Amino acid sequence: MNFASDNTTGIAPEILQALVAGNDGFALGYGNDDVTRAVERRIGEIFERDVAIFLVPTGTASNALALAHVSPPWGAVFAHAEAHILTDECGAPEFFGAGLKLVGLPGVGCKVTPQTLAETVSHYEGHSPHQVIPSAFSFAQASEAGTIYRPDEITALAAIAHAHGMKVHMDGARFANALVRMNASPAEITWKAGVDVLSFGATKAGALAAEAVVFFDRAAAAHMAERRKRAGHLLSKHRFLSLQFEAFLNNDCWLRLARHANVMADRLAAGLAAAGRPPVWPVEANLVFIALPKLAVAKLKSAGAQFYVRASDSLPGQVKFGPDQSLIRLVTSFATRPEEVEKFVELAAKV
Amino acid sequence: MNFASDNTTGIAPEILQALVAGNDGFALGYGNDDVTRAVERRIGEIFERDVAIFLVPTGTASNALALAHVSPPWGAVFAHAEAHILTDECGAPEFFGAGLKLVGLPGVGCKVTPQTLAETVSHYEGHSPHQVIPSAFSFAQASEAGTIYRPDEITALAAIAHAHGMKVHMDGARFANALVRMNASPAEITWKAGVDVLSFGATKAGALAAEAVVFFDRAAAAHMAERRKRAGHLLSKHRFLSLQFEAFLNNDCWLRLARHANVMADRLAAGLAAAGRPPVWPVEANLVFIALPKLAVAKLKSAGAQFYVRASDSLPGQVKFGPDQSLIRLVTSFATRPEEVEKFVELAAKV
Amino acid sequence: MNFASDNTTGIAPEILQALVAGNDGFALGYGNDDVTRAVERRIGEIFERDVAIFLVPTGTASNALALAHVSPPWGAVFAHAEAHILTDECGAPEFFGAGLKLVGLPGVGCKVTPQTLAETVSHYEGHSPHQVIPSAFSFAQASEAGTIYRPDEITALAAIAHAHGMKVHMDGARFANALVRMNASPAEITWKAGVDVLSFGATKAGALAAEAVVFFDRAAAAHMAERRKRAGHLLSKHRFLSLQFEAFLNNDCWLRLARHANVMADRLAAGLAAAGRPPVWPVEANLVFIALPKLAVAKLKSAGAQFYVRASDSLPGQVKFGPDQSLIRLVTSFATRPEEVEKFVELAAKV
Amino acid sequence: MNFASDNTTGIAPEILQALVAGNDGFALGYGNDDVTRAVERRIGEIFERDVAIFLVPTGTASNALALAHVSPPWGAVFAHAEAHILTDECGAPEFFGAGLKLVGLPGVGCKVTPQTLAETVSHYEGHSPHQVIPSAFSFAQASEAGTIYRPDEITALAAIAHAHGMKVHMDGARFANALVRMNASPAEITWKAGVDVLSFGATKAGALAAEAVVFFDRAAAAHMAERRKRAGHLLSKHRFLSLQFEAFLNNDCWLRLARHANVMADRLAAGLAAAGRPPVWPVEANLVFIALPKLAVAKLKSAGAQFYVRASDSLPGQVKFGPDQSLIRLVTSFATRPEEVEKFVELAAKV
Repeated sequence: MNFASDNTTGIAPEILQALVAGNDGFALGYGNDDVTRAVERRIGEIFERDVAIFLVPTGTASNALALAHVSPPWGAVFAHAEAHILTDECGAPEFFGAGLKLVGLPGVGCKVTPQTLAETVSHYEGHSPHQVIPSAFSFAQASEAGTIYRPDEITALAAIAHAHGMKVHMDGARFANALVRMNASPAEITWKAGVDVLSFGATKAGALAAEAVVFFDRAAAAHMAERRKRAGHLLSKHRFLSLQFEAFLNNDCWLRLARHANVMADRLAAGLAAAGRPPVWPVEANLVFIALPKLAVAKLKSAGAQFYVRASDSLPGQVKFGPDQSLIRLVTSFATRPEEVEKFVELAAKV
Repeated sequence: MNFASDNTTGIAPEILQALVAGNDGFALGYGNDDVTRAVERRIGEIFERDVAIFLVPTGTASNALALAHVSPPWGAVFAHAEAHILTDECGAPEFFGAGLKLVGLPGVGCKVTPQTLAETVSHYEGHSPHQVIPSAFSFAQASEAGTIYRPDEITALAAIAHAHGMKVHMDGARFANALVRMNASPAEITWKAGVDVLSFGATKAGALAAEAVVFFDRAAAAHMAERRKRAGHLLSKHRFLSLQFEAFLNNDCWLRLARHANVMADRLAAGLAAAGRPPVWPVEANLVFIALPKLAVAKLKSAGAQFYVRASDSLPGQVKFGPDQSLIRLVTSFATRPEEVEKFVELAAKV
Repeated sequence: MNFASDNTTGIAPEILQALVAGNDGFALGYGNDDVTRAVERRIGEIFERDVAIFLVPTGTASNALALAHVSPPWGAVFAHAEAHILTDECGAPEFFGAGLKLVGLPGVGCKVTPQTLAETVSHYEGHSPHQVIPSAFSFAQASEAGTIYRPDEITALAAIAHAHGMKVHMDGARFANALVRMNASPAEITWKAGVDVLSFGATKAGALAAEAVVFFDRAAAAHMAERRKRAGHLLSKHRFLSLQFEAFLNNDCWLRLARHANVMADRLAAGLAAAGRPPVWPVEANLVFIALPKLAVAKLKSAGAQFYVRASDSLPGQVKFGPDQSLIRLVTSFATRPEEVEKFVELAAKV
Repeated sequence: MNFASDNTTGIAPEILQALVAGNDGFALGYGNDDVTRAVERRIGEIFERDVAIFLVPTGTASNALALAHVSPPWGAVFAHAEAHILTDECGAPEFFGAGLKLVGLPGVGCKVTPQTLAETVSHYEGHSPHQVIPSAFSFAQASEAGTIYRPDEITALAAIAHAHGMKVHMDGARFANALVRMNASPAEITWKAGVDVLSFGATKAGALAAEAVVFFDRAAAAHMAERRKRAGHLLSKHRFLSLQFEAFLNNDCWLRLARHANVMADRLAAGLAAAGRPPVWPVEANLVFIALPKLAVAKLKSAGAQFYVRASDSLPGQVKFGPDQSLIRLVTSFATRPEEVEKFVELAAKV
């Protein structure tokens, strides 16, 4: 019953197999190999556009490199106050961005509304050069609460961002989970809705360690190669990053893996709701959050369930916690088995 | 006949097998797993000392993180002018080190002599705060010329560095190749000789992507965890870095792989010398450099040999190049087969 | 009727005279002169302690250099959300601090309470290395609202900071204004209450451009000379910074200038209160904030009054603004004349 | 007999008087005042072009801000190995430039030749993204050796720089001294010869602390206001920077001050040459370097002469030093009196 994180899993079999199969022989380092070229083409096809991509081993690198590339050091990057880039990357965007400033915004379900973005940005105008300049809006798809932004929401947010000269960055560590939930194409939830640069994650979704920074405007990627290199994120045996992505994207593997994770989350949510523990936020990706008495948390853990207790300021108004309750986060993945879900639901119903 | 680089190889079978074998089940992310603990202990055993280690995916990250941790932004890091950190990392040490300064020193065979170090450092004293302050000496073992520093040389260099308040960093991207050439232990060529921090490489030696920053004084590693994280170099599925290192170090695998590479280099050098093409520098690791007429270079390449032409200001005085000659670099690895070496030698004798 | 800012004034006559008188002859540059030594001693006397001081030309430099020196790049610096360092320095602390993170806290009257500090800091613990580490608490004395922290408040805040391993920085751009309001010595409101480093301002108080970073623990200032130099803040003709400070501190000039500014602010506040426009925050330094109908603002401006309209989220609960009202800031200084105050009050009573 | 530096002087009378005269009344801070506008216009007239200017208090700030604005973090800035930016700014360009790399070039008389520039730059091409990218050429006018670059030399250097996509920066800490030596206009030795950005110095030439970054292409200055602000170099009482520059440029004051300094240097050089101590480099600005026996140095110092001993690797081939000799630097200024020059020459002839 491991619901701790989607990064506690191993490598999806299809991807591991690709590493083994692609190990033979020699290949030029640093991305000058055929597999890397093929991955570039494949990602272009998926997004129906000529893109510039940069593979890196971690999501933090992917986010920070992308943000640093679209924001000057005197820029303000707006994002939800509980976004990974603000709370879990130890200041990586500030480091990569030579001291740029992250501004945390409120919003239920870890989502920023167009109204909030517009109002906040308005406070950052007309005070130059004393104040930093709005440079980017970043949002996580799916969000840290497991909620997703629909195409029209993205379009509205991006319109505000662009109207103020800002770029739009999507933290897609769980991009596949969000995508398969919607009746929309990869293009429709990214550049067609106004996203300028995407951190496209494969690691949580099944890879060993592989993330792609995707620029939808190739010109905007100028000198990203140097930025990546000097950050130590250009792998010498780069083909192994590319092999992961190739297998991930091949034959809809990524969509299949994400759907499984989401189905497991849905099943978990449904079971818990039936047991009187409804999720506090809509379950739209592979994350389920519920409120539990602290005693129940302890019992579940001692029964072998693995998960984290979280805190959040973005709960819906109607959700109330007493001092004896905790918010717990349950993460499913490509590796989650139905039996584990059932066992957990059963236990949760009892405690 | 691929002698382009040791990073054009795939993964050594022992290491790949370990990735496959270690893939089952779940493990806590970010290095909070049992394999990582085991690797920490194992590296401590190898170096006969309680060390602090930080695994990262690239050599550039390993070098830059180490240097930034031992040098303040107003520090000067002295190294050979042709060192990888100066010429091939696109300014990574400067980036990680918030603008520290690298100072390139001359020296035959890409090695810095104690005399040169002492004299250069003397020019950086007594002029504070106008000038940067000597903070570290960094040297590559083996060097970019394939030469190695013997324990007494390291001891002499480190003594000078320490006498001036500097730390000593060893870029050990080819540490194993240097080690197996000497009748000395890992401890004797590192901390016993005065090395403070080592970038211990496994990638060129056979791993997919795995390097360890090794601090011989654990206290000096304080907050390196944060530095690594904010650089995006803390892998979420960290166990796969550890699995690589575990297999690499297990049963002397690393020494065996390095010995093979060195033997191949020796055989290459001997064959070429016999053919009238002696190496320009002593072959002490897995690199062989020879002078060749440009015409011969072209012929070898068209015959399928892969290698790079290099330039160097650190050739021995007696080596002379005419305008029609090139310096070529031949790199062997764990994957080099004797047949390739023989074929190359044979071809080189003819052209 | 210039109440726009204390930086719209010229140079106080005593200070200007010192520049003229000290201009003769030659003096070694970069602070190696006798006047600089004298100022160091004098500041030590004032604070009853052996201090390390660094003179710089701007308050932003003083704050940013101080914060960067007490916080690592992975540090979090806590301060009021409307503090100058967060809103008016265009990211200087982040730049000087290699990407450190500023965390804005709420609080009425631009003051942070011990409770708020303690609670916020508690959210930054136990999540290393994913989250930045609490490194410093910074507060402005007087605050941006013109309120001041009393010795017991500082003591309580500093105790919390120190208990969590944080340093305490005081932004004293209006230090003199705060000091003369209290029955306390410079020592009592700084290091005796737990302040580690002070940005001691003279510019707003009457100098041309002179601020001192004061370290109460000399050891904590190690290498600040290099940090200042590489930031371009070591003046070559440094004696002119020192001459300003010498005159500023001589014969209680600084206290006299500050008292005048405060008296003018008190008179302004009293007159406005009598006219039905009471200050929204206690007037404890040289700043007076009142609510005014927008129409009145326009009338005052057209009558020649100079001041800025501000926005704040730190108004007391009982203060309510309608959509037709503005918060205006009135700043007095050593150069404010009583006639101007009276004229303004008279006008404000009418509009 | 103070020949230590042009920064040991006080303020030129014309400039000091302007500070006194301009002190009355109030003025908006941060450069939003009339004097600043006037200075902008005046500098534009002097350079016969619409320029963007940014006043700052130090030469180091001026140089570092300019370089950071024309070079990305992965850029290489080429300059003479003994340039102030490399040896005397404690890494300021690297700090401001987020880790850019300075590359020191050789050259007699602290001057870089077109040949040297072209050859060095050629080694920095074709190796992206492993190596930093040529981004700027910076040269001091006058140089640290007191030599100057003639218009045709600048044109040749700038042509090479521009051909490689680099910008050209002139460190004009002693711009006036160089200018008045040539039969050329300010425009002819800057933008007409290919200079993109100039650090125009007034401090050494007579100001208290005032330097201007001058962009000859206004578009290239976009966001320099933010860069200056976040570096703490936007003075709040900015009018006092402007007043200095206004007086400096008024009625050819700057040219008169510089001519005096140069004349003093010429007289010093002629006298010393007549006494058998000819300058080692051509005296083209206000610096005179001669070789002296160490015993003579000591005698001169004990007789009250103030100057520094220097070391240089850019002496002309014919100049030879024995181990008992020193290279001494003598700096004249607007404040140097003929009597001092004569006294020094007389003494030097004797010792």
